[in-house]
Amino acid sequence: MRPAFSTLDSMLRPSSVAVIGASADPTRIGGRPIHYMLDQGFRGQILPVNPNRREIQGLPAFAGIADLPFAPDTAIVAVPTKLAVEAVGQLAARGVKSAIVFTAGFAEMDEAGAAAQASMIAAARGMRLLGPNCLGLFNARHGFYPIFSSSLESGWPQPGRIGIASQSGAYGTHVFAVARNRGLGTPICVTTGNEGDVTIGDVIGWLAEDPDTDVIAAYAEGIREADGLLAALEAARQARKPVVMMKVGASAIGQHAAKSHTASIAGDDRVTDAVLAEFGVVRARTTEEMLDIAATATKRIYPVGNTLGVITISGGAGVLISDAAELVGLPLPEMPADAQARLKAMLPFAAPRNPVDCTAQAFNDMTLIGRFTDSMVEDGKYSSILAFFSQVGGSRTIAPALREQLNATKAKYPDRLYVLSVVARPEQVREYEQDGFVVHEDPTRAVVAIHAMGRFGDAFARAPDPAPSPAAPVALPRTALSEAEAKRILAEAGISSAPERACGTADECAAAAAAFGFPVVMKILSPDIPHKSEIGGVLLDVTDADQVRDGHRTLLARAASAAPNARIEGVLVAKQLEGGVECILGIHRDPVFGPIALFGLGGIFVEIAPDVALHRCPFGPEIAERMIRSIKAAPILLGARGRPPVDLAALAHTLAHLSQWAVATGPRLLSVDLNPVLALPDGAYALDAVIELSPCDDQKEIAQ
Amino acid sequence: MRPAFSTLDSMLRPSSVAVIGASADPTRIGGRPIHYMLDQGFRGQILPVNPNRREIQGLPAFAGIADLPFAPDTAIVAVPTKLAVEAVGQLAARGVKSAIVFTAGFAEMDEAGAAAQASMIAAARGMRLLGPNCLGLFNARHGFYPIFSSSLESGWPQPGRIGIASQSGAYGTHVFAVARNRGLGTPICVTTGNEGDVTIGDVIGWLAEDPDTDVIAAYAEGIREADGLLAALEAARQARKPVVMMKVGASAIGQHAAKSHTASIAGDDRVTDAVLAEFGVVRARTTEEMLDIAATATKRIYPVGNTLGVITISGGAGVLISDAAELVGLPLPEMPADAQARLKAMLPFAAPRNPVDCTAQAFNDMTLIGRFTDSMVEDGKYSSILAFFSQVGGSRTIAPALREQLNATKAKYPDRLYVLSVVARPEQVREYEQDGFVVHEDPTRAVVAIHAMGRFGDAFARAPDPAPSPAAPVALPRTALSEAEAKRILAEAGISSAPERACGTADECAAAAAAFGFPVVMKILSPDIPHKSEIGGVLLDVTDADQVRDGHRTLLARAASAAPNARIEGVLVAKQLEGGVECILGIHRDPVFGPIALFGLGGIFVEIAPDVALHRCPFGPEIAERMIRSIKAAPILLGARGRPPVDLAALAHTLAHLSQWAVATGPRLLSVDLNPVLALPDGAYALDAVIELSPCDDQKEIAQ
Repeated sequence: MRPAFSTLDSMLRPSSVAVIGASADPTRIGGRPIHYMLDQGFRGQILPVNPNRREIQGLPAFAGIADLPFAPDTAIVAVPTKLAVEAVGQLAARGVKSAIVFTAGFAEMDEAGAAAQASMIAAARGMRLLGPNCLGLFNARHGFYPIFSSSLESGWPQPGRIGIASQSGAYGTHVFAVARNRGLGTPICVTTGNEGDVTIGDVIGWLAEDPDTDVIAAYAEGIREADGLLAALEAARQARKPVVMMKVGASAIGQHAAKSHTASIAGDDRVTDAVLAEFGVVRARTTEEMLDIAATATKRIYPVGNTLGVITISGGAGVLISDAAELVGLPLPEMPADAQARLKAMLPFAAPRNPVDCTAQAFNDMTLIGRFTDSMVEDGKYSSILAFFSQVGGSRTIAPALREQLNATKAKYPDRLYVLSVVARPEQVREYEQDGFVVHEDPTRAVVAIHAMGRFGDAFARAPDPAPSPAAPVALPRTALSEAEAKRILAEAGISSAPERACGTADECAAAAAAFGFPVVMKILSPDIPHKSEIGGVLLDVTDADQVRDGHRTLLARAASAAPNARIEGVLVAKQLEGGVECILGIHRDPVFGPIALFGLGGIFVEIAPDVALHRCPFGPEIAERMIRSIKAAPILLGARGRPPVDLAALAHTLAHLSQWAVATGPRLLSVDLNPVLALPDGAYALDAVIELSPCDDQKEIAQ
Repeated sequence: MRPAFSTLDSMLRPSSVAVIGASADPTRIGGRPIHYMLDQGFRGQILPVNPNRREIQGLPAFAGIADLPFAPDTAIVAVPTKLAVEAVGQLAARGVKSAIVFTAGFAEMDEAGAAAQASMIAAARGMRLLGPNCLGLFNARHGFYPIFSSSLESGWPQPGRIGIASQSGAYGTHVFAVARNRGLGTPICVTTGNEGDVTIGDVIGWLAEDPDTDVIAAYAEGIREADGLLAALEAARQARKPVVMMKVGASAIGQHAAKSHTASIAGDDRVTDAVLAEFGVVRARTTEEMLDIAATATKRIYPVGNTLGVITISGGAGVLISDAAELVGLPLPEMPADAQARLKAMLPFAAPRNPVDCTAQAFNDMTLIGRFTDSMVEDGKYSSILAFFSQVGGSRTIAPALREQLNATKAKYPDRLYVLSVVARPEQVREYEQDGFVVHEDPTRAVVAIHAMGRFGDAFARAPDPAPSPAAPVALPRTALSEAEAKRILAEAGISSAPERACGTADECAAAAAAFGFPVVMKILSPDIPHKSEIGGVLLDVTDADQVRDGHRTLLARAASAAPNARIEGVLVAKQLEGGVECILGIHRDPVFGPIALFGLGGIFVEIAPDVALHRCPFGPEIAERMIRSIKAAPILLGARGRPPVDLAALAHTLAHLSQWAVATGPRLLSVDLNPVLALPDGAYALDAVIELSPCDDQKEIAQ
């Protein structure tokens, strides 16, 4: 049973905090948090613990945890590795609700460290624990700074409604420092370190429930635990709180680097990507992009079916913005023809299509800016407006009148998102921001941020997909499966194969072929030969009875020669289906998220750029169809260039059935590979099936 | 004959300038340049021309161009449209060398404006002319400001060695303003407007020859003229001056917007992309990226075979940087094992693989930073070093010692590129920059800029590709070509087709098929039916003589029914080649760059993401092979998964021959479509050929 997110209250809004390993030196790991809290007026009681001092930084100190006058809400643990486990045990025994463990030397180091970390979690006996090996957290609203980063020395957090959740301490505080320097308020920042207990999912979940947080900016290297993250992302979606995440470790070197620090598990990045997309999380590619999106999101305008209207004084910027919008997929519909005519009548030099180029001429009569922008909202009905005014927006003479015009439009239509691309002094930018405008100097960055608001809006508006009713548990055989067995067991789950028959003798093969009609396919049938084509164990285009008999002999001979110890169950004869499109359907067990379904085109396609869709199992045919339509090559299935469209419903049902079956089989199912599934205008048929199981527990014991 | 780039000297470094339409009001179009030049101390003589005033802004004014005491080097034209053409004619008559024409209302407006622009160019009689409809230019080194942008009011250009060339005035000055605000020196900025005469290519060429410019930042919407641009890019490459370009208009809306302003020709973006790549121009996706790259390039370190060593205090940042590097293709080789062991011995917490994570522990002994960085240069041999120090790099207490360490390494190995990712106050950033470090707060942006330096280095180091010897001119037939004629004419150019024969009767067809061996392909043969398969005019898998006779009848019947007026020349019988990989080779005439060759895979591939390589014609087999290897699907040709590799030499020669032939045929060749060319393990054969010609001049007259 996962603890409620609110169990983190004690470490994020405590009324008292003990500091185990407290230091009188405000630059030491055990001294800096006390120094920060005293400086910023922590609204609770600070209880330094140090066996050698009676007083620390002006506060009375206690010799040990047992000497504390009462059990504080939370405690900072900043003692050496060998003392930390014991300290956590003592805190738990005193009834302290949570601990923030700075101490390093645990799972990030080696096996012994991992064992020590496990002991620490056991000693916590359910007490919530941040870290170990974490930099700490801060909650500026409470003046609470259990953190030993030096980044607060260069400035305190600004007020605001963005919360930061980060696995990395150094990078989390980097994000904070960059945000602060650009005037963005991130009063809460939590870094999770080794995640012995509290994960990034817990922190996101707590922020989703926090009434003072509107926007969540997260940084992750690898997800360790699925349930908490999934619950947190759904809670954020329900609360209409955007989550923008940098999830790093997509590259080979990046995965290696992620694994080699802070004990991170870097899973398959594409799986994480699919899970994040499911909940409407927007993935940022850079720190700047994350902060651009978070800053824009604080306006809390998340359009459904976002459209962009661009007003510009530079045709060149209009072109650049159009390019950027097309690249991310943000529509720029044209202004209605009659509205274009009206704008053209007001200002003959204007190009009013959208981007609406009002040229610098508009500054001769500033009301033109207002009238143009009004028309874009009223007639163009854009949910987002991007105004490119470059350095004119920062001009001392023009900017005040411009602000007045824009504010008037905004007051009339407050439900739209207004973003300005201006080159202005910081104090001028602050003025626009105080008016409620979002300011991004770079127009491309503005487009990316505006697009993200629509993605949030669409995710918030989407009804949760109907969960398929749970399938009855499927009993898997104890041993490896031959192709025929695999197909039989999948057929029970509603997955069709081409008509086929497992045969023993050459005569049986010939009879089966005659019954199906020629041509047929023949394959060696053995649970011990999963990759039949590698030993020449598949014969295509077998066109008459003589060839069937020859084929039977050939297959047995090849198997005997290539795999003399394999158990041979006979030969599979199948009707050879022709035409259609070869697809791949598969299941892969992710260590964190469990069975993941994959869909893509088969044959030569899989060898080039990966063009596949992934989704957590189980799901129904709606999501399956969405996956199928999402791949780049989808037009080939949908009937491009006069080709007959395939039976999408049958294909979607096959994929959905597979996903439900994968869950019903339980954790012994490692992978399924249906390659190819032939998608025909009428039906979809698995032509091959490989199921990989982990051994039963008793078999594992025998093997060991 | 293209004028030399140095003919722009008179408009970029004049010793005297007349201002036609001079104004006493320093905010008017004819007054602002005078005001700017007086303020900034233009080093030459300013000659205001205005019929109504004796004195303007303190300078003696002249009533007309005829009244000027001598012919100035250049002139600003800021008079209404209907006076501008005459003014240009008078300036040319006086022997003025160049004119900068602000006046609008020409080709950007309508047909009449285009005609007026043509008259103006004619009136200039070879005098160089910037614009019309341009914002002007500035050269701060000479205090020369013939520009009416208000962007100079918020600050003058910083000293530096970056030149800006921009087709758009508003966007060009936006780039200048953003650069200036971040402390980047762009003392020269030229905006070309309608490009009636001077094009962006001319400006790039002049900057390539300018001894005071090291780096060229360019903004283009569409290229109007090829020769100047090609000569300019080659001059820049030879001078080892990086060109970083924003070329916008890739999107459909963007192309429309580009066409609807400043009379731009937005050609095929992919063609421009191919041409820019040929010369090592790096294309920036955003303004920020263009300036990041330009700023980094001012260090003039352009590594060949660039490699990146990363030193970081955050493992998370290391992962993020690795991801970013993999995305752009910048290698991060591992540190040698022995060096890793030495670093690990110095600092047990370090992860020394690369990224080298020295953790915040390194700040306990600052010499560790120096020793680590030294080892990365000496042992890792990285040409570029990226150091992520985040806010520690901006710490008052730590930064000075850090600077000292980094400066010592830099002094020892000055030939490397050193980039810092630090969060620091602007004045601290300036200090690092003065030391010779490049500073990019965002590590992802740092990676992109570092990668660009290697691309410049590789382009500068590359020997020009050997130009193929010019092919003898090819005479094209006067009329449209049938498939057989097309193949015959291409065969003369060295492009092989499958064995085939044009036949009249069914008996001739049967004889041809028997000679080739079955199966054969049969096609209707008519110059008037270019897309045969659309009328059922292609029969595959014809396997015996009876089918050949049936096929002959079928094809004639289908042609008679679907295209009753087509001239039918008979039936083409070809050997049906099997196996191999279907490719597409084509030629398309670009209105600016002439014939462009295309290579891609055929069949189902062309329907999905465009995966093609383009190149200007003509070229030799080396470039052809590079094109073939550059497509994503290239592994399919090179023998992926045990498939036999195709005959790459034959395929490359076919493509190179086609490119040379396309030039030799002259401008009547509109397009060639060899779809498919079958690439076999032994040879490459065009299975179909469609050649599209424009009518001869006399035929055009008849048609009109």
